[in-house]
Amino acid sequence: MSVTAAQGFTAAGIAAGIKENGNPDLAVVVNNGPRRAAAGVFTSNRVKAAPVLWSEQVLKGGELAAVVLNSGGANACTGPKGFQDTHATAEKAADVLGVGAGEVAVCSTGLIGVPLPMDKLLPGVEKAAQELSEHGGEKAAIAIKTTDTVHKTAVAVKEGWTVGGMAKGAGMLAPGLATMLVVLTTDADLEASALDAALRHATRLTFDRVDSDGCMSTNDTVLLLASGASGATPAYDEFAEAVREVCDDLARQLIRDAEGASKDIRIEVVNAASEDDAVEVGRSIARNNLFKCAVHGEDPNWGRVLSAIGTTSAVFEPDRLNVAINDVWVCRNGSVGEDRDLVDMRYREVRVTADLAAGSESAVIWANDLTADYVHENSAYSS
Amino acid sequence: MSVTAAQGFTAAGIAAGIKENGNPDLAVVVNNGPRRAAAGVFTSNRVKAAPVLWSEQVLKGGELAAVVLNSGGANACTGPKGFQDTHATAEKAADVLGVGAGEVAVCSTGLIGVPLPMDKLLPGVEKAAQELSEHGGEKAAIAIKTTDTVHKTAVAVKEGWTVGGMAKGAGMLAPGLATMLVVLTTDADLEASALDAALRHATRLTFDRVDSDGCMSTNDTVLLLASGASGATPAYDEFAEAVREVCDDLARQLIRDAEGASKDIRIEVVNAASEDDAVEVGRSIARNNLFKCAVHGEDPNWGRVLSAIGTTSAVFEPDRLNVAINDVWVCRNGSVGEDRDLVDMRYREVRVTADLAAGSESAVIWANDLTADYVHENSAYSS
Repeated sequence: MSVTAAQGFTAAGIAAGIKENGNPDLAVVVNNGPRRAAAGVFTSNRVKAAPVLWSEQVLKGGELAAVVLNSGGANACTGPKGFQDTHATAEKAADVLGVGAGEVAVCSTGLIGVPLPMDKLLPGVEKAAQELSEHGGEKAAIAIKTTDTVHKTAVAVKEGWTVGGMAKGAGMLAPGLATMLVVLTTDADLEASALDAALRHATRLTFDRVDSDGCMSTNDTVLLLASGASGATPAYDEFAEAVREVCDDLARQLIRDAEGASKDIRIEVVNAASEDDAVEVGRSIARNNLFKCAVHGEDPNWGRVLSAIGTTSAVFEPDRLNVAINDVWVCRNGSVGEDRDLVDMRYREVRVTADLAAGSESAVIWANDLTADYVHENSAYSS
Repeated sequence: MSVTAAQGFTAAGIAAGIKENGNPDLAVVVNNGPRRAAAGVFTSNRVKAAPVLWSEQVLKGGELAAVVLNSGGANACTGPKGFQDTHATAEKAADVLGVGAGEVAVCSTGLIGVPLPMDKLLPGVEKAAQELSEHGGEKAAIAIKTTDTVHKTAVAVKEGWTVGGMAKGAGMLAPGLATMLVVLTTDADLEASALDAALRHATRLTFDRVDSDGCMSTNDTVLLLASGASGATPAYDEFAEAVREVCDDLARQLIRDAEGASKDIRIEVVNAASEDDAVEVGRSIARNNLFKCAVHGEDPNWGRVLSAIGTTSAVFEPDRLNVAINDVWVCRNGSVGEDRDLVDMRYREVRVTADLAAGSESAVIWANDLTADYVHENSAYSS
């Protein structure tokens, strides 16, 4: 499973001592070819971590031989020294793997503004390289966890080729991207341009529509590596759908493991004038702290949904809005609808449907409730 | 104090039975003239409560004889019946006060999507009219409380004229406006156009820069009524400054009483290329749940400030950003600055300074931390 489900890949996950608690904190994923095509999507935050700046540059060549990922430190807001550290990490991996540093992507996650302990990280890269295995995907997925309670992997097995992947992410989860590191691998034989198109299509519909806490990270990275080892070249549409499937699976896992969350909220905006309108309205509802608290309290407070819709620039008339919570249309025509006592919110998944009555476009955004546990976890995170 | 500090005004606050717990829930403020000039500023939420739609219409004439305010129900998302209820409230007040319904503004606050109990509200208006007094300002301020723990009043006494006011607001506090009802009164002798200009100037710099929880209400209303009873006509600038002073005082009181908050966060953005940039950056920091949690935990987590700045479209270079928390420059040139252990965050007020190094404009935004108490209060609010 994970990044070694597809042929042509080896991986490892070890404890390098970056995390003070001794948990696994360093992963290496290697593409053994024959092809080394790759594509990447990165955070849209303008404050970008050193590894993001590095990997963006490396990806311009459309090839990756390996990815080094560490948890225990984001290497963000660490100045020129932070960039040097990322560069040194790539050089070290290149050295021990016998590839070029310009083919090595680097991903980091953890606290912002803290320099990485390079005296532990560099020996760790060497150690991980020695443990690379075709069965190492699971360990790699474990090594990139931060506040994740479970590691996240997914795979789609098709006729003669496979797409697999791993993800980490639990806090600072918002679109553009959600805060996370994701490495996807495939043994399909495709060029970088096809990987890039499929990856952008998939992230736009999955990771970009996860909004757990409205906070956008400095480190988000999604990489897709193709080894061509299966010898199969699937049709683009079929491949793109498999990538979307794996991304969707991983995105749902991020929501299910979001910090402190007790509910997963599926917000579907329907009958919008445009897909952009649907996404804007969905995100506004997803980020409304009062509504998120209400969901936590299992309170079908549709007034908070309407007040969130009202802050957007989407096309709608207030007196034509309809809102359903768990399929009960508690708001009709902008006013009181069915009895709110009919809404059963005991289960983890809560479905909100917002009908804008303004067109035929739609979008789904996934969010979480706001809980005291979220506050506790994030008020003590760095202490 | 309050709305009766200025000459020419009477007010009352009573328990009409709108709130089931029997607390005061209805206030009336009357302008006895000789002048009845008025101006108003309303929520920018596109889902507007019936009383907002009514009062916006009434204000077009630039005159108000009275304001009726109720807590215990927002009369928002209540359809045509809700608007009829607001109209009936104004008609009732007009009837008992001997004025025209078109000179009566109506403000409501409380739960969205619940019809008002008109069988209690209308007799309440009659009762309140009988209790109108030159000393009724305090009682009026008490009657408009919802989750407010204290009532809020302010006054500025100038040479020969006065500006006073009252406010309510504790949750759903975000700019454009913060969620709140405010009535300001003055005995200065000024025309509606001067009141309108002074009020817009003041709200832009005060209430619009309060962002407690990022949630924008359907009912926000700020009214300014002038009786001319002092006979004094101050210079516009002097008057505008007095209005700003009273609004600033009330805005700070809103922040200090915000639901569940344990900290007041003063976010000053300096050296911005434009005032709009400064406000955008300030709001982005103010709305970052992770940073708000960190402040609650007394953790000077400047990385979360930088990640919030990075989501804006303001002019800045990431490697020139500086951030101080309580005057300790923990981030310099986008990287690690002074020792974060020097930051003392034990006190209620926390000062964040974000230096964009991109110009000479600045703005101050006030926010609150995010606490488990906020979650508890808002997950049980309507139950």
